[in-house]
Order: sequence, then C-alpha cells, then structure tokens
Amino acid sequence: MSKIFNWPVRVYYEDTDAGGVVFYANYLKFYERARTEMLRDMGFEQDQLMAQEGVIFVVRSVQIDYLKPAKFNNMLEVSAQLSLVKSASLTFEQTIMCEHELLSKATIRIACLDSNTMRPKLIPDLLKQALSHD
Amino acid sequence: MSKIFNWPVRVYYEDTDAGGVVFYANYLKFYERARTEMLRDMGFEQDQLMAQEGVIFVVRSVQIDYLKPAKFNNMLEVSAQLSLVKSASLTFEQTIMCEHELLSKATIRIACLDSNTMRPKLIPDLLKQALSHD
Amino acid sequence: MSKIFNWPVRVYYEDTDAGGVVFYANYLKFYERARTEMLRDMGFEQDQLMAQEGVIFVVRSVQIDYLKPAKFNNMLEVSAQLSLVKSASLTFEQTIMCEHELLSKATIRIACLDSNTMRPKLIPDLLKQALSHD
Amino acid sequence: MSKIFNWPVRVYYEDTDAGGVVFYANYLKFYERARTEMLRDMGFEQDQLMAQEGVIFVVRSVQIDYLKPAKFNNMLEVSAQLSLVKSASLTFEQTIMCEHELLSKATIRIACLDSNTMRPKLIPDLLKQALSHD
Repeated sequence: MSKIFNWPVRVYYEDTDAGGVVFYANYLKFYERARTEMLRDMGFEQDQLMAQEGVIFVVRSVQIDYLKPAKFNNMLEVSAQLSLVKSASLTFEQTIMCEHELLSKATIRIACLDSNTMRPKLIPDLLKQALSHD
Repeated sequence: MSKIFNWPVRVYYEDTDAGGVVFYANYLKFYERARTEMLRDMGFEQDQLMAQEGVIFVVRSVQIDYLKPAKFNNMLEVSAQLSLVKSASLTFEQTIMCEHELLSKATIRIACLDSNTMRPKLIPDLLKQALSHD
Repeated sequence: MSKIFNWPVRVYYEDTDAGGVVFYANYLKFYERARTEMLRDMGFEQDQLMAQEGVIFVVRSVQIDYLKPAKFNNMLEVSAQLSLVKSASLTFEQTIMCEHELLSKATIRIACLDSNTMRPKLIPDLLKQALSHD
Repeated sequence: MSKIFNWPVRVYYEDTDAGGVVFYANYLKFYERARTEMLRDMGFEQDQLMAQEGVIFVVRSVQIDYLKPAKFNNMLEVSAQLSLVKSASLTFEQTIMCEHELLSKATIRIACLDSNTMRPKLIPDLLKQALSHD
C-alpha cells in the first residue's frame, strides 16, 4: 500500500440535497478531487498526461459504503491510497472523514486508456515508477 | 426477483465531462431516477411517504461497473429490479443500456429511515406488500 | 417571436439542495434541456451539427429571475421561445412553470462557434431558415 | 462598494462538459462558494445563521456574462463584492479570473428569508453591521 494522501473538501449547498445531507452521487466527486490532487502532488497533471503521453484515466468500478451522512458546511478530509498498481490499471482505497468519524469508504478501480482510441494503454513509465515507489 | 422496471434517460451536456462522455458520478443520478420512477409507477411518492409515514430512503452502498461510456445525446434505458426486500432495507439490481449494449450495471442497497431521527425504520406495510408481490 | 416550445422536467433529489428546493444553478440545466429538445423537435441534433457543420453553441449571457422555488417531485413545464435570430447568435426567452405558477424566467443569449477554432461562425443555413420561419 | 473578497477554485472533471470547458451552470456554483467563504471570513456561518437567527439566503436574480471559457485543471480566482445592502436583500458583483484574464462576471441579488415561513426577513443586525462597514 502506498502512502495515504489527504485532501480537504468543504461541503457547499451545491453538494447537498433536500434530505439535508450530501447527495450520494456527489461523494464520487469528492473522491475524484482527492485522486486528482494526489497525482498533482506527485508532479503529474492530467491535462499534460493527455497532451504529452496520450493517456486518459477512466473509472472502471466503484464499491462505496455510506456510513454516516456529510452535511452542509462540514469540513471533510478525503483520503486516497493506492492498493494495486498494474500495467494499465490502478486501484485506490479511499475514505471520507469528518471530525474523526468515518463517513464513507470506497474502492475505486481506474483504467489507463489511449486518449484517441479509448483502448487500454500502459501507464506511462515515469508515472508508474512514481506510483510504485511512493 | 421482482419485475424489471425501465426508464428512459436522455444524456444532456450537463451530464458529460471534458472526456466527452458521461461523468462517472452522474450514472448514480440516472440509477436514482429509475428507482424513483419505479416507486411512482407502483403508486408511491417519496414526498408523501415522508409526510405521511415519516420515512426517508437513503443509499447505504453501491457497487457499480462502468463497461462502456454513455455519450452526449445518447438515449439510455435504465432498469431497476428489486433483488432483496428486508424489513428495513431494499436491494436493487440496475443496468444502463444504449442501443442494446450494456453500458453499466450496479447493485444498490437502500435503507429505510425515520425521517426525524434518521434511524432505521420498518418499511411501511403497504409499500412492503407492493414491493414483495410485484 | 417564434412559437413556444414546452418540455416537461421532473425534479429529482439530484436537483435539490439542503434548503429543500431546487439549487439555483440547476434551473440552468432545465432551461438547456428545453432548448436542446426544441432543436431536436425541429430536426436538428447538436452532435450532428458539430460533426457535419463544425458548429457548437455556447451560452454568452443569462439573465434569470427566481420567483418561487421548485421542489422535490414537482413536475415542471419549461418553455423556450426564440426572440432574436442573428447571423451568429440566438436569444431565447424561457420560463419554468409548475401547476400554472411562474417559478422562474430567463433571457439566454447563445453564440454559434466554429467547433475547431471556437470563433464565431454563421449559423448553418438550414438551421437558420428553420429557426426564422418557425 | 465593500472590499473585494477572493477565493481560489480549481476546475475538476466534474465541472466540465463534453465541449471541453466548464458547463455554464457550474459557474454559479463557483460564485456561491466565494459568497459563502466571504461570509465565513467575516465570522458568519450559514448553518448557524439558520439555527440561531432563523434566516436563510436565497438567490432572487442572476445576470451573468460568459466571456472566455474556463477549462479542466484551471486554477480560477473568484471574487465577491457587495454593491448594495438593503434591509432584507444583498447585491453582489462577482468575477471569475484565470491568469489575469476575465472569464465571467455576474451581478447576483440575494434575499434574506425567514427559514420557517420563507418570507422576507430583516438581515440580522450583527451581520448587517458587518456587511455595511466592511
């Protein structure tokens, strides 16, 4: 397992629904923000990876548990940790915490695709090395 | 397993992302629309269930696979089928098809809560009967 | 002024916020759905307009008034009416009604752009004729 | 005119559409984040204002211009500045900049409502004083 990367996310009205809590689809936005910022923290920008390496990352599967609801104005901590690095896919274990309580956890599998053909493509070497040695 | 309920969903710009396809969180919106319309088709409105029975439904877990991308302007068919009815929870098997191709499938577990205390509450009898005999 | 086109929109949980009503940005989604369906109703698909004519439509300005809130489960009627057709832009007058009450009205100006250069481009002849004579 | 408050916003995939740029409704999310953070910066939390003062803020009208598109991965600066403070409403002038270019500007009028009756209510004294002397 790689190091754990943490990213703060504030809950705004846009994220909530009439039930008074964060709408269930929007947790996936928060999880993606943390993955994007983890890559950025390692020196990789996804727009450059597409322009220079011709790769794009797409989500293949998500297993998510909703344990306690996140609410308007909550300051969340979203974690991302790589659990599996394969030649053309990545698996992340992620959590959302608020004030030391676990609100949600998820396992998210990502595929690396050729941005033109949208077929599986090897993860670029530099990125793979960085992900494997982190 | 209950009967399969189908609901059409058109993909608009709002649903897509810069990758040119539907953003991965938005499939959860489509799946929820189909569940909501399935209940409505059976004669149950969620706002009335809250006002009259004091119950609200929340998602407890989602397992979703993304097989092929949905694109702008696609006309999707979203299915919902009950696979398990328990005293205070429901499990749905759902799919998204486009022109006879399977784009995504999901297993979604829903809990029935007291809308005031947000604690688990028995599914109202009339609804449970309707769901069990469908 | 052209004929008025109407499109039904159901409010789902995804559209609401913790205030119990539709989140203010989401009215713009509803307005766009009606514009898209109006074009479709006239025989024009935006993905084909891009592929065949190399044009894309972007919003240049919005003036929107929020008069009464739309709520979860409401069945809305969203109208779209062309008020001005110029060589490279369109102006729509739009409203959102619910049970004969006016909830919102908007004036929305759209520009026609070359989808490669993203510079203003003449509206394709066939579309312009259809819009002007409607 | 009050002081100008600035808030950074990163553009994620969730914000973009198949046109490759930020979806037009999502600028309203960014503008609201800046208004929320401006209030927070002055010491006011909207959930506390609702719980303690019984007030909620709702948007009454928006005039927004889209000058240049925001793109995936852009780091935006969103400004908020009060231009008018009345007894039960506020008007903000807001902009979105990216690398010293103006992408969008908006005038947004907010009403202060009683959170129970949803009727207009005087802005709480402490907040009004803070807003007027800022």
